[in-house]
Amino acid sequence: MPSKPTRDDTRERLIQIAMELFAFQGYAATGLAQIARKAKVLPGSLYYFFPTKEDLLHATLQRRHELLQPEVLDPAWDGVDDPIERVFALLAGYRRMLTLTDFQHGCPIGNLVIEVGNSHPDARRLLVRNFDNWLDAIERCFRDAAPRLPPDHDPRRLAVFVLVTMEGAVMVARAYRNFEAYDAAIIQLRDYLERLLADALAHPQPDKARNAKKRSRRA
Amino acid sequence: MPSKPTRDDTRERLIQIAMELFAFQGYAATGLAQIARKAKVLPGSLYYFFPTKEDLLHATLQRRHELLQPEVLDPAWDGVDDPIERVFALLAGYRRMLTLTDFQHGCPIGNLVIEVGNSHPDARRLLVRNFDNWLDAIERCFRDAAPRLPPDHDPRRLAVFVLVTMEGAVMVARAYRNFEAYDAAIIQLRDYLERLLADALAHPQPDKARNAKKRSRRA
Repeated sequence: MPSKPTRDDTRERLIQIAMELFAFQGYAATGLAQIARKAKVLPGSLYYFFPTKEDLLHATLQRRHELLQPEVLDPAWDGVDDPIERVFALLAGYRRMLTLTDFQHGCPIGNLVIEVGNSHPDARRLLVRNFDNWLDAIERCFRDAAPRLPPDHDPRRLAVFVLVTMEGAVMVARAYRNFEAYDAAIIQLRDYLERLLADALAHPQPDKARNAKKRSRRA
Repeated sequence: MPSKPTRDDTRERLIQIAMELFAFQGYAATGLAQIARKAKVLPGSLYYFFPTKEDLLHATLQRRHELLQPEVLDPAWDGVDDPIERVFALLAGYRRMLTLTDFQHGCPIGNLVIEVGNSHPDARRLLVRNFDNWLDAIERCFRDAAPRLPPDHDPRRLAVFVLVTMEGAVMVARAYRNFEAYDAAIIQLRDYLERLLADALAHPQPDKARNAKKRSRRA
């Protein structure tokens, strides 16, 4: 016999439905009544958990933060060990998402930056926390690859460049509703990283490379 | 004595106010009544020129297309002749715009891709025309610089990479409300282009370079 849904189940279902609707329709276009209906929850129950729509928005951003590793990074990196290839595997994951959703669903964080970033300062801070979390993961890839990169390259700055490329490529792909621009941007990013790898290989700096490796282990 | 405003003046004023409000507040959050009020025009007059809000949206996107050269490219490129430096001068223009508007106003085209791209197919096509126009201008820069770039580099694909970097960098800067990520992305893009220039310089291919120059002249 299935057990009765608990309070936590209901709250979680509301968050999941809200995440989906905010991503596909936007925050303004999504009403609390629609969320309650789709979650098969009485409006009063929704208000019990989330007195305001903004409370629900914050809960979805908190959940997205927690889900980055299990739902975004782990599936993209399954079977991919090379840290540079992990960067491209993650970018391929966003491409797959655009295919699966027929270009309707961009990066949910980027969308909300544009939609509510000006008007909702608390949400903006949670969006930044999500970006920071993403950047930490990609920075780790570049730290792991540090001995193979020119020693003057900053792993955080490279991670920012990847985030910027991803957000821009997802946006432009959604405008064109095809992958021409997305793929063009990834080809150029890969060309850049391959040039960095080739440069480091051609100019080995044993001491600095070892130090970078040590720094990476300490981190 | 100032002349009486003509029909064209009124229509143009409505477009200018709509462009500003759509860029700062978004399309959904901007009401036709607010536009009429700000333009000091009676609502009936607005409906005379633009029977629907979508008609006004289309008119603003048409105007943005026409204004790219005189209002975006010409000011950014004033006194800048080097085609590669023109790319960075344009990116510096977006950075200035973020400063002037305290990060409230991103790229008006990119914002609308995310806000109305799914729901307004005609507007989406006009947004694509704006991107195409922008890409044509940056592609011309890379065509002009073709003899100084490795011969296998496609000027259109490089232009797409610059557009993607700009859109991503503007979005991420608006999230953080500072220029750390924006500047990091531009540093990496410049490093990439400098590596391409250095590579071409180290491996001159006289025939190919001449052909690229000829192609650029024919275009």
